[in-house]
Order: sequence, then structure tokens, then C-alpha cells
Amino acid sequence: MRHFIVELNELQLRLLEMGSLVESAIHDSVLSLVERNELVARRVLSNEDRINHLEIEIDELAIRLLALQQPMAKDLRFITAAIKINSDLERMGDLAVNIAERSLALLLQSSIKTLDIPKMADTVQSMVHNSLDAFVRREAELARTVLLSDDSVDSLRDSIQLELTSIMQKDPSVVPQGIDLILVARHLERLADHATNIAEDVLFLIKGVDVRHHLESGP
Amino acid sequence: MRHFIVELNELQLRLLEMGSLVESAIHDSVLSLVERNELVARRVLSNEDRINHLEIEIDELAIRLLALQQPMAKDLRFITAAIKINSDLERMGDLAVNIAERSLALLLQSSIKTLDIPKMADTVQSMVHNSLDAFVRREAELARTVLLSDDSVDSLRDSIQLELTSIMQKDPSVVPQGIDLILVARHLERLADHATNIAEDVLFLIKGVDVRHHLESGP
Repeated sequence: MRHFIVELNELQLRLLEMGSLVESAIHDSVLSLVERNELVARRVLSNEDRINHLEIEIDELAIRLLALQQPMAKDLRFITAAIKINSDLERMGDLAVNIAERSLALLLQSSIKTLDIPKMADTVQSMVHNSLDAFVRREAELARTVLLSDDSVDSLRDSIQLELTSIMQKDPSVVPQGIDLILVARHLERLADHATNIAEDVLFLIKGVDVRHHLESGP
Repeated sequence: MRHFIVELNELQLRLLEMGSLVESAIHDSVLSLVERNELVARRVLSNEDRINHLEIEIDELAIRLLALQQPMAKDLRFITAAIKINSDLERMGDLAVNIAERSLALLLQSSIKTLDIPKMADTVQSMVHNSLDAFVRREAELARTVLLSDDSVDSLRDSIQLELTSIMQKDPSVVPQGIDLILVARHLERLADHATNIAEDVLFLIKGVDVRHHLESGP
């Protein structure tokens, strides 16, 4: 039992390590875009491997914990939430890479205004941070604030896309840059979706249906 | 034990039901785009709820199975693969909805050539179908063909985006339609990524590291 608790803590620590790598990747990817900084963009690309390896380690740890003994309902919810959050984080790392790739593409072209993208990025980064914080501290209220932010991200995406469409129509020479920025806004929106997924997993973890109750009343 | 096997089969059946709903959604979303058919697009939107409910049911079933008894290594791999495939399928349903939403947006605008999008959609649909087929039949070879197709999807996305960029620059009046089609190509690319994820889970399921071996050699 003691061994089990130690490994359960290890699982949470590993997830937080992954979360902090992903947060840095998102931060750097946006920074590389706003500051047109190639080095920072390349750093995001070169850190992807670490995130991918950590995903596999966390998965193996979670499966080992499930095999180790029959976990209690609460631990079971934690381990399955960990498996899902892990997969969300890995994809968030991919999205940071996608944004860094757009930054690199934009570096080869003439500069264009980033409009509300930094503002959208700020909101998304708060959502990511808060969803992970809600996970560590098991705070339902904080998880709920993440869910509430999703709408404002969607409306920022819409207004950015609309503004870029009009800029591209007025000056077709910036069509390639406009497309890159629209894709960045989409990547940010997906990052917000993943933060929302994590917040939902946290709520399930805190208030989830009791698995044993299900068992007792099951078929 | 017999009860466990029955529920394990139930889990697989439910996943296949979900897979078939998602395949239909993808098929319909592309059809609505190519044929500019509003009814078909709306059908995709109205079927999303069923997919979302099924995701929750499958998750609950998987967690119940984990709680029911200490599963053997092979069953454990199956259940954790099921949890991941379930989450991939739900997001694939979302992507079909995203494509259908682009179709609806395109219906309000003058028609524009869909270029290689139908070809890209065909490849993606094969990948999705084959990944699920590989899962049902536990066929590693078929799963590997899915992994191999991912590159051709990426290069189709690149060529479509390049062609659309040039069309939009020559005729800025079609910028909005061009953006919609670029987003469709991106959604298709992400569908291919999810099919790739499923194929990787199938390979893990068939040839995965023995969890017990891990335990024996673990810390």
C-alpha cells in the first residue's frame, strides 16, 4: 500500500513536470511569434522530444499502477484522469510546435500586425495554467473558471479571422501571412479546448460518479 | 470471470458503434461540402450529441471494468487502449462537425473549386476505417498501413494550401471561401492524426510491452 501511494505521487509529479514543459512551450511559441524570434521558435521544436518521451513514461506508470493492485474508486478516477490529461498535454505540446512552425514561416515574409493574437494567447495561457493548478489543488471552482473562459477565446478567434479576412482582401500580397495567423488563432483555440478537457477531468476527479456505487447498482 | 468477459465484449461493441457513427459523420461532412448540401451538413450537427453521450458511456464502462477486478496485463492494455481510442473518436466527431460548419459557411458564398480536398478526404476516410478495422481484427499490418498514409495526407494538405493561396491572391473576392477550404484541409489532417493515434494504440495493444514484466523489473 505504501508503495502504491508513492507511485501515485510519482504519477502526479510526472504530470506536473509535463504540464510545466507544455506551459513553457506554449509561452515560447507565442513569444517567438510576437517578437519574430527564430531561436525561441527552434527551442520549442527541440523540446518536443522530451514531452513525447514523458507522455510514454506517464502512460506506462499509469498502467503499472492499474496492474499493481485493485485501486480504490478515488484512485481509479485519478489514474484514468491522469491518462487523459497526459494525452491532452502531449497534443498541447504538438500545438505549441505548430505555432512555432507558423512563426518560422512568418519570419520569411514581410511583417504583419498580430492584432488580438497576443490577447488571445494570454487568455489561453491562463486557462492552461489554471486547469493544471485546479488539478494539483483539486479545486472545482478554479476548474469552472476555465470552462467559462472558453467562449471568450472562441469570440476572439472569430474577430481575428474576420479582421484578417478583410486585411487580406484589401492587400492580397499579405494573403500568406494572413493564413499563417488564422492558423495560429485556430491552434490557440484548440489549446483552449484541451485546457477545457483537463478542467472537465478535474471536475470528474473531484466530484465524479462513485465507481463503486455504479458497480452495486450495475447489471 | 464470465461477467468480466461479457463486459469486455460490450466495451469493444460500444467502441465499434462509436467508430461507425464517427465514420458516417466524416463521410457526411465531406459529402455536404462537395455537394453543397445543407441537409447533410445539418445531419452531422444533429448527430454530435449521440457521439458525445456514447463517449461518456464507454468511459464509464471502461472504468467499471477496471474496478470490477484486477485485469490481466492483456485486458488492461485493451481497456486503456479503449479509453484512448474513445477520446480520439469523440474528437473526430468534433472535427466532422467543424467540417460541416465550414460547408454551411461555404453555402452562403459563391461556389469555389474544392481542388484535391475530395482526394484528401478519401485517403483520410480509408485511414479511419483501416485503423478501426485493425482494432477489431487485431491486425498489426493494417495498423502499419495507416501510419504510412499520414505523410501523403500532409503533402496533400500542403499542396491544397499552396494552390488556394495563389487563387486567393489572384482573386481576393474569394478570400473567405479560400480560408474555409484551408481550414477544412486542416480538419482532415487532424482526422488523419487521430486515425494514426488509434493505429498506434492498436500496435501497443497487439505487441505492447508486457505490463507484468515491467512490474518485475520495476523499482
